[in-house]
Amino acid sequence: MQSLRSELHIVGICGSLRKHSHNLGLLRAFEQELPDNIKFTLADISEIPFFNEDREQPYPEAVLKLKETLDSADALVISSPEYNLSYTGVLKNALEWVSRRSLQTKLAGKPVALIGAAAIGVGVSQSHLRDVMFALNMKVINRPIVQVGYTREKFDSEGNLKDNVTRDLLVQLKNALIDAIVT
Amino acid sequence: MQSLRSELHIVGICGSLRKHSHNLGLLRAFEQELPDNIKFTLADISEIPFFNEDREQPYPEAVLKLKETLDSADALVISSPEYNLSYTGVLKNALEWVSRRSLQTKLAGKPVALIGAAAIGVGVSQSHLRDVMFALNMKVINRPIVQVGYTREKFDSEGNLKDNVTRDLLVQLKNALIDAIVT
Amino acid sequence: MQSLRSELHIVGICGSLRKHSHNLGLLRAFEQELPDNIKFTLADISEIPFFNEDREQPYPEAVLKLKETLDSADALVISSPEYNLSYTGVLKNALEWVSRRSLQTKLAGKPVALIGAAAIGVGVSQSHLRDVMFALNMKVINRPIVQVGYTREKFDSEGNLKDNVTRDLLVQLKNALIDAIVT
Amino acid sequence: MQSLRSELHIVGICGSLRKHSHNLGLLRAFEQELPDNIKFTLADISEIPFFNEDREQPYPEAVLKLKETLDSADALVISSPEYNLSYTGVLKNALEWVSRRSLQTKLAGKPVALIGAAAIGVGVSQSHLRDVMFALNMKVINRPIVQVGYTREKFDSEGNLKDNVTRDLLVQLKNALIDAIVT
Repeated sequence: MQSLRSELHIVGICGSLRKHSHNLGLLRAFEQELPDNIKFTLADISEIPFFNEDREQPYPEAVLKLKETLDSADALVISSPEYNLSYTGVLKNALEWVSRRSLQTKLAGKPVALIGAAAIGVGVSQSHLRDVMFALNMKVINRPIVQVGYTREKFDSEGNLKDNVTRDLLVQLKNALIDAIVT
Repeated sequence: MQSLRSELHIVGICGSLRKHSHNLGLLRAFEQELPDNIKFTLADISEIPFFNEDREQPYPEAVLKLKETLDSADALVISSPEYNLSYTGVLKNALEWVSRRSLQTKLAGKPVALIGAAAIGVGVSQSHLRDVMFALNMKVINRPIVQVGYTREKFDSEGNLKDNVTRDLLVQLKNALIDAIVT
Repeated sequence: MQSLRSELHIVGICGSLRKHSHNLGLLRAFEQELPDNIKFTLADISEIPFFNEDREQPYPEAVLKLKETLDSADALVISSPEYNLSYTGVLKNALEWVSRRSLQTKLAGKPVALIGAAAIGVGVSQSHLRDVMFALNMKVINRPIVQVGYTREKFDSEGNLKDNVTRDLLVQLKNALIDAIVT
Repeated sequence: MQSLRSELHIVGICGSLRKHSHNLGLLRAFEQELPDNIKFTLADISEIPFFNEDREQPYPEAVLKLKETLDSADALVISSPEYNLSYTGVLKNALEWVSRRSLQTKLAGKPVALIGAAAIGVGVSQSHLRDVMFALNMKVINRPIVQVGYTREKFDSEGNLKDNVTRDLLVQLKNALIDAIVT
């Protein structure tokens, strides 16, 4: 059992690349709720090339950077919109790289929280993502469920969360995620 | 009802980028079975940047090229491996672009065949892809099911299909796809 | 091509057994929108025993009745709530029986519309149901999507639909389903 | 942390009702691998009526029996075939009952292993079942994956497992499940 005294590290990954993304706003709000002794890093997945087995090695710089970030993570939070009833390609591409056996990224058994925001909800895309997490042998946090719909009313024009119900859910999620780390 | 005399156009999209990809091999084998009066184009999705709403317009050249190819298609064949129990990021990314409303790609109602090859099968990834096709309002061909497992025995080292059972399925699929176009 | 003059037959199946079910209400509202020359039958799946291969034959009376009803159907409408993020057991059980090869129920290629109502929506359960429909080789209607959430506001205490937006969707669905039959 | 000295209780649920079911055979093989201090109960779901909210209470005897069995369980093993690309209706029906809020069945947080056997594999049905387990807030065991295909070669005519590779997987699964209980 790990002590809460040592600094924990939670890594966030955003499935949307736009600057004022609601999903990025969710991750920022999540980070704001973390206690001081927990470090939060937002992973950059925008510079990773498309996975191509012919060009797998030497691993691209951006992939090695992501691997290093994930290796030092005690838990992940993945926030993805739902495009065409599923998660985003940029997110999946990053996960493909870090799951390559020879890269030996330390993902197995780590807790991961799936959150997301989209106008019509993110239910089906989170179902797909749970399958991916199962393949990665990660420990999905079941509760609370953070699937934000009707996003226009809940974020400002810069993607900042202004909905307190969702913020409360993020606080609960933070607690659940920390619990999952230390046990 | 469209006459078979006019040239039909089928567009293939491969979810794997490697040169000797088994999924590319499936598409090549599919193309070989097409009659002379059907044109086949393999779409290039490798040069499309990650979708980012901030940089959506002007549309990147590679996106416009894909849109044009798809607009002229009477039907699609999508071949994807299964990575982490799902389809590939590069494939999903391309679909995100062409489904943007303002791009007005003609996808709705067009028949699409989903095929794929992976060591442990592609059942769950095709389930995910069917959800995406539903979101795109495309007409998924139900039969035959072309999900190739144990790929090592069925393709040569350059990714050429050498399995006749699978080839027969591709012939059936070609017929089903053409039927779906002309009716 | 079938003439619209001959009487068409649409069969509804409800995934909920309660009397004032919202999903039953959806089917009633759908039926109300049908023109006079289309017959509608609500299938009874409540008397079908659990599928058990040891007791498959002779087929139970209720199974034979359902088979007969489905054989005479030109199209289906399946309305299911979402329980535990999926469709209902009673619905799936009925589909298992009628898909038995030796029963030879005529399902392949028939159009089917999936609709549903539940407090938190029916997105994931319809995704599961589309997989089942794919297995049954049925032709799922893509549009309009009829997934009714916040059901308390949209149905009266007897399960009658009082929401006009949803009713309009059902009218569109009726048209799409009839179109899928006659082409 | 619970001591392994106290007797643990694992409950199995079989999604197939036939006597010589391969899925029942998997559960029997699993039970054979349990150490003496772990009690195994096979739940009976065949006598539970179809869920109907109008007839929910008083709870049927068979439902109360299942609730009691599950309440005393430290972990579950669910074995289901894949019919029509999904789990079975009889299994889902039982889960609907025990998830009723007023019944207060103790499921949340309990470890559950999903196993299954079917001629063409059980990949998609386990994906659906994981969604259901997520809804029930149960802790799905990720590894090992026990999805048995080509069942004819791996079971005898009475449904007894005769495949040692699968048996080894069940031993690993037993260990993973026990680990998940005691931590």
